[in-house]
Amino acid sequence: MQQKPGPFTFITPTAPVATPTHGGRAKCLQRLIRLDLPVPRTVALSFDAVHAIAAGCEPDVGAILAEFPEDALLCVRPSSEDPDWGGPGSVLNIGMNDASFVTLADRIGTEAATALYLRFVQGYAVHVARLDADIFEDIHGVDSDALSEALRVYQDEAEEPFPQDPGVQLAGVLRSMARAWEGTTARLLRQAKGAPADAGLGLVVQEMALGLGAGECGSGVLQLVDPQTGKRQITGRYLSQSQGREALTGGKAIYLERDPRGPSLEELAPQAFAALKEHAALMRQRLREEMQIEFTIEDGQVHILDGVRVSRRGRAAVRIAVRLAEDGIISREEALMRVEPRALSEMLHRQVAPAAPRDRIGQGIAASPGAASGAIVFSTREAQAYAARDEACILVRRETGSEDVRGMHAARAVLTERGGITSHAAVIGRGIGRPCVVGASDLHFNMAKKTLTTRDGRVFRRGDIITVDGTAGDVLAGTPEMVEAAQDDSFRTLMAWADAVRDIGIRANADTPADALTAANFDAEGIGLCRTEHMFFDADRLTVMREMIFADSPQGRRGALEQLLPMQRADFIELFRIMEGRPVCIRLLDPPLHEFLPADRTGMRDLAEALDRPLSDVERRVELLSEYNPMLGMRGVRLGIAVPEIYEMQARAIFEATVEANRAGLKVVPEIMIPLVSAKREVEMVRAAIESVAGQVRGRTGAEFEFRLGVMVETPRAALRAGDIAGYCDFLSFGTNDLTQMTYGLSRDDAGRFMSTYVQQGVYDEDPFHVLDRDGVGELLRIGAERGRSADPGITLSICGEHGGNPESIAFCRAVGFDYVSCSPFRVPVARLAAAQGAISDKIK
Amino acid sequence: MQQKPGPFTFITPTAPVATPTHGGRAKCLQRLIRLDLPVPRTVALSFDAVHAIAAGCEPDVGAILAEFPEDALLCVRPSSEDPDWGGPGSVLNIGMNDASFVTLADRIGTEAATALYLRFVQGYAVHVARLDADIFEDIHGVDSDALSEALRVYQDEAEEPFPQDPGVQLAGVLRSMARAWEGTTARLLRQAKGAPADAGLGLVVQEMALGLGAGECGSGVLQLVDPQTGKRQITGRYLSQSQGREALTGGKAIYLERDPRGPSLEELAPQAFAALKEHAALMRQRLREEMQIEFTIEDGQVHILDGVRVSRRGRAAVRIAVRLAEDGIISREEALMRVEPRALSEMLHRQVAPAAPRDRIGQGIAASPGAASGAIVFSTREAQAYAARDEACILVRRETGSEDVRGMHAARAVLTERGGITSHAAVIGRGIGRPCVVGASDLHFNMAKKTLTTRDGRVFRRGDIITVDGTAGDVLAGTPEMVEAAQDDSFRTLMAWADAVRDIGIRANADTPADALTAANFDAEGIGLCRTEHMFFDADRLTVMREMIFADSPQGRRGALEQLLPMQRADFIELFRIMEGRPVCIRLLDPPLHEFLPADRTGMRDLAEALDRPLSDVERRVELLSEYNPMLGMRGVRLGIAVPEIYEMQARAIFEATVEANRAGLKVVPEIMIPLVSAKREVEMVRAAIESVAGQVRGRTGAEFEFRLGVMVETPRAALRAGDIAGYCDFLSFGTNDLTQMTYGLSRDDAGRFMSTYVQQGVYDEDPFHVLDRDGVGELLRIGAERGRSADPGITLSICGEHGGNPESIAFCRAVGFDYVSCSPFRVPVARLAAAQGAISDKIK
Repeated sequence: MQQKPGPFTFITPTAPVATPTHGGRAKCLQRLIRLDLPVPRTVALSFDAVHAIAAGCEPDVGAILAEFPEDALLCVRPSSEDPDWGGPGSVLNIGMNDASFVTLADRIGTEAATALYLRFVQGYAVHVARLDADIFEDIHGVDSDALSEALRVYQDEAEEPFPQDPGVQLAGVLRSMARAWEGTTARLLRQAKGAPADAGLGLVVQEMALGLGAGECGSGVLQLVDPQTGKRQITGRYLSQSQGREALTGGKAIYLERDPRGPSLEELAPQAFAALKEHAALMRQRLREEMQIEFTIEDGQVHILDGVRVSRRGRAAVRIAVRLAEDGIISREEALMRVEPRALSEMLHRQVAPAAPRDRIGQGIAASPGAASGAIVFSTREAQAYAARDEACILVRRETGSEDVRGMHAARAVLTERGGITSHAAVIGRGIGRPCVVGASDLHFNMAKKTLTTRDGRVFRRGDIITVDGTAGDVLAGTPEMVEAAQDDSFRTLMAWADAVRDIGIRANADTPADALTAANFDAEGIGLCRTEHMFFDADRLTVMREMIFADSPQGRRGALEQLLPMQRADFIELFRIMEGRPVCIRLLDPPLHEFLPADRTGMRDLAEALDRPLSDVERRVELLSEYNPMLGMRGVRLGIAVPEIYEMQARAIFEATVEANRAGLKVVPEIMIPLVSAKREVEMVRAAIESVAGQVRGRTGAEFEFRLGVMVETPRAALRAGDIAGYCDFLSFGTNDLTQMTYGLSRDDAGRFMSTYVQQGVYDEDPFHVLDRDGVGELLRIGAERGRSADPGITLSICGEHGGNPESIAFCRAVGFDYVSCSPFRVPVARLAAAQGAISDKIK
Repeated sequence: MQQKPGPFTFITPTAPVATPTHGGRAKCLQRLIRLDLPVPRTVALSFDAVHAIAAGCEPDVGAILAEFPEDALLCVRPSSEDPDWGGPGSVLNIGMNDASFVTLADRIGTEAATALYLRFVQGYAVHVARLDADIFEDIHGVDSDALSEALRVYQDEAEEPFPQDPGVQLAGVLRSMARAWEGTTARLLRQAKGAPADAGLGLVVQEMALGLGAGECGSGVLQLVDPQTGKRQITGRYLSQSQGREALTGGKAIYLERDPRGPSLEELAPQAFAALKEHAALMRQRLREEMQIEFTIEDGQVHILDGVRVSRRGRAAVRIAVRLAEDGIISREEALMRVEPRALSEMLHRQVAPAAPRDRIGQGIAASPGAASGAIVFSTREAQAYAARDEACILVRRETGSEDVRGMHAARAVLTERGGITSHAAVIGRGIGRPCVVGASDLHFNMAKKTLTTRDGRVFRRGDIITVDGTAGDVLAGTPEMVEAAQDDSFRTLMAWADAVRDIGIRANADTPADALTAANFDAEGIGLCRTEHMFFDADRLTVMREMIFADSPQGRRGALEQLLPMQRADFIELFRIMEGRPVCIRLLDPPLHEFLPADRTGMRDLAEALDRPLSDVERRVELLSEYNPMLGMRGVRLGIAVPEIYEMQARAIFEATVEANRAGLKVVPEIMIPLVSAKREVEMVRAAIESVAGQVRGRTGAEFEFRLGVMVETPRAALRAGDIAGYCDFLSFGTNDLTQMTYGLSRDDAGRFMSTYVQQGVYDEDPFHVLDRDGVGELLRIGAERGRSADPGITLSICGEHGGNPESIAFCRAVGFDYVSCSPFRVPVARLAAAQGAISDKIK
């Protein structure tokens, strides 16, 4: 037997408004009532009504009380558009007084009624009369003495007796809650949660369902899924003779469904449990969402007090959305829209368990998600030693450079003192899926003594175990409990749905076979950026590279490069093999040559020995090649034109690899990308050189093959002159990292020092290295895309900077008409989902 | 009695062309004939006719010879549009043979006729028959034996007798000259001189006026001005019994006008001299130009063989143009158009005398014009010691930085191993008017041993005397003869005319009172850029600046800055005083703080002592402040926002100086410029801080004053967002140095290494740091100007980079609608003239 649901009344302010808003809770309760669920009588006050009360208007308590039975106990709760925005903290009660106490004592017993009255008086005193909580601290026990004492203390402190009139109580409660919403603390809190400045508060007045008294009485919460995993499983708690959410904290709470671990509501009150299950299923079906239900049982009868969306993270969000769509409750498109793209990245990495205790010893920028524990090491050599023993280690550096990449591969996670979201460590970390915290400047890094010292003086040495939480940006001592990464069926289903609707390509940036494997696993449609410089840092290659740098003639350089050729070719064959004919875009050598030379004296001495040259020669060469602003120096295509042998060797390696891959049955059309272009003539010259190499390889091997040549647009000038440049190439790929640096005149390596202050002070809305700057950099992208397309409508346009995987950037790239975005392999799923959401949003418009 | 001028005939090719071109010399001769001047009979062959001959067509020699008396001696000369484009080297003669020799010997004597025939045969042999010149080397003397021997040698080598038919001779000469023009050497030469690829050659066939024989015979050249100075003075030489230009090299040549130093034509043949003077005056009047006349006298009769524009440099060009206008021969506007703006800068600096022998020991980039000699010094300290003794020295550095500015002031010229046209040394050198050669990489700089070693091993040590020729980019040993700088009346007249027609403002970049004085002397309309950082490098200020950097709190920083305030205020008062109320635009501090710290260990140790801090403290701070890409780091407005005390101090100094200057009767409205802006909020914040300081100064002094706030647009983003930024400022000044660096992604300090190769290979048309890149940087200027203007039509727009003084940039700035350009003080006259020329060109269109 279902209890008839209570009436639902909206109270709007005297001044009429077009569509009064009452907040999410009110709307939800109204829907539950329309579904004939057993919700107590409810009155909802609109935002405008509450705002008027806060501003000093007298609430029309008579009208509200008239909706309820005389002498009913009521409770008042906040109702806002988003539960995250908070609001007045407590649920406040109305209607308790000396008279109702007598009635209530008859119904639920004197002790329970006394406890309720006591709680009532204290709540009212603190939240409405604004008295100190500690005025009641000498009152102990739950009896009539305590109650009298409490009422006396109230009268002394408030200088008036505890109000007996429910109307007076209600007016006080409404006023207090209305004002709490408009106070500074609440406003700052809302701001922090991202609420709009004019977010409003509604209030819901509801008849109390007590959960106390004769028969089976109690309260609890229920949901049909496990909020951690999203799996179908009734979870929640129930506590007899309790109110509100006590079941969640009370020690004697029981399970809901029959459970081997202990007693359950199903056993205790099978009918009530069945009713609850039925209500929950109906709510899921009709509210089209997994809901958490707050309920009360009074003498075996179920009352539903409230329903809120089950809060969820990463994998739970995916599973819930997919299940709702599979059950036909929502469409696939709606399921796609319901998952926050960034939530996916949680699933792709091991994480510190949300409930695990955290011994935080430092904090920095969360540069690459996931968490890993291991022994502290301070050098690539040590990291490799650990890796050789298959022991976990964390690479700790002031900052990383190309020479640390092998160390990063060998370590489980990386921690640096300096750098920002697009520093070397961050970019590589994300690329190879290593958790990474950068810019941990509150830790003192002593590289000489090989120690990390915390603010409060704790010292961590080489070999000590720490955990890098790259999702949160934390450095933790020891090894907290972890949650493993998992790509379950739901994930794969969601991804398939996303691919079915999205209309922009997603590729991955991948420098190594390992990266390419990850990219292929995540169904990237190709490699959008393969940075070849990382291929030159293996010990044997580095030596040859340095020989090349020290060669005095083109012949000498060619001789050294000749040795690198077979290695490069092997790299490319491997990449082509892994990508199985999907496009691979290879960027020709980009960094300045000095990056391949040692920076310190020991390194230079070693090099002098290796090359059998005097140390002074090495020092002189290093000095000659050093630059004031390496970012703006002799690199990219400038190097390609000054030392043409390098690009020639790379082109040959690419073409020979293509021939070999095609002979093995693949159909490879390699893409070659020229970095740091600023004038069309650069492209013209490199194109001529590469075409000549292609001709030679075709001639020598007798094999035909095609290739595509493109430009990495990363100087503002290349974007502005895209029209000219388009005439010499097949694709333009916008490198938004460097483009952002040059558009702002801001080096990402040096920006870390002030970027957070700049964003905090609102000088920049966002870190432009993190979120694509649509107004400045974006304008250059738009100009470049327009001019490139109008010169050559068939040209392929893409973005391959760190921004490539950002949902906001993807929306932008779709709007500008790019063909694909390329991002680090681990962001590919995020990008696929974000692209799908963009396409769906456009369809809805 | 004047001889009747000869006829003038144009010979065009068989295939008719619309307007055949005959070249400059032919045109000039035609005009002289029309003026009834005594020019010998002349036939001109058009470009097309000559081109046809080079291609193998037989010239119609009969038609040409028919224009001349039978048996006349003729000469053939090239005729092209520009005398600088060269052409076949020699004047070749026609008509000498055994028969005419007899007639000639009767007329001018056997010896003279023999000499002529001998010269004739040899010239024909070498230039037409293409025989080696040394086949005649055994022939000595000028007699009939020698002549027979020469004709025999010719016949042996050419395997045919010397042609006696004038038609055969003429055909051979025409063919030879036509082909010489189309040869590779001539083509490369023309290319180097900037001739168009299709430049043509005409030929002029003229009856010879011999200058040999009875009565007063001879030849010479005459001009009415001194070509070095442009002053009115008959200059040239005359030599009796000579031909062609022999008078210029022959030892026995005499003066033209009566001269105390020796005999003259005026005394020797007064009538001929008077006729010549009259002809020259007529030519000046009717050809509207100062002409050099080539003349011959035959038995007292004057013949005018040719007239060419007097070649001239700097001051002569100015004086000639001004005098022609003052004499009413040309208009003032034409006078303005006739002076190459860059020629002015020659007048403003001391130069190595054009004819002085040059012992060149090294070469680099001509970074700042003028020349100076002095002893080599390798440090600022040494330079100051020389300056204190009032002895000339040359500062030699690998490259210069802010710490070298005082040394550059103390030295007479600057020489650096590295850097390009906009390196620090170049910019400062031009700014303070010191000759400067940068990037002299063919000299080996050993800073430790204090030596300069040339390619061929000559070693120059500290104290050795060298000369830096910053106009040519040369380093010379010793002290060659110099020409002093001079601004004469003509210069001032021309400038006044320029100011009357130009329609864009010209300001100067001036950092010091000395610069400001130069600017005021050159009538700059204000200071467009005063870089305040140079004010902080005096020893006493630097120490305080460093104290500020090491201060740990805003209070500490304010304390240090408090000491700098009166010095800054005094700087500004001085600037305001010198500029006498003309606008002064002061840029707030721009460079990163590490520029104020020592880079080497000794400096750090000194600093540690001075600050009484441990060395490790100093090292740590230096390391902390060091940057990967200082150009893109913590500088400009970023520093202003991070350490607001600095800009506050500067604003206070500016406002207090304004109050004081105004009390002294000036009307100063200071302009304050914020560097390195990339977002409007930066401007908003700095504006608020500066307005607050203004309010304080107004309150404290009780004085009213106005000021203007502006933004230095030097990041691409600032140009793109000029619309937003305009809302917060009164002016936008485009800093094209940094804007070029960022648009190209190219550091000017690092570009020197490959820029010359890049320009040679045609990768870039020009060095963009030298000539404004209209296509890329220019587009950002256009975008910035349009958006700035459309947001605020009253906003002042200007350019203040190194490009400001370039004629091409000024044309661009006029087209875009800028209000003024600002350039280094010594380029102000160039800019004034270029601006006038732009305005005149527009009027003509």
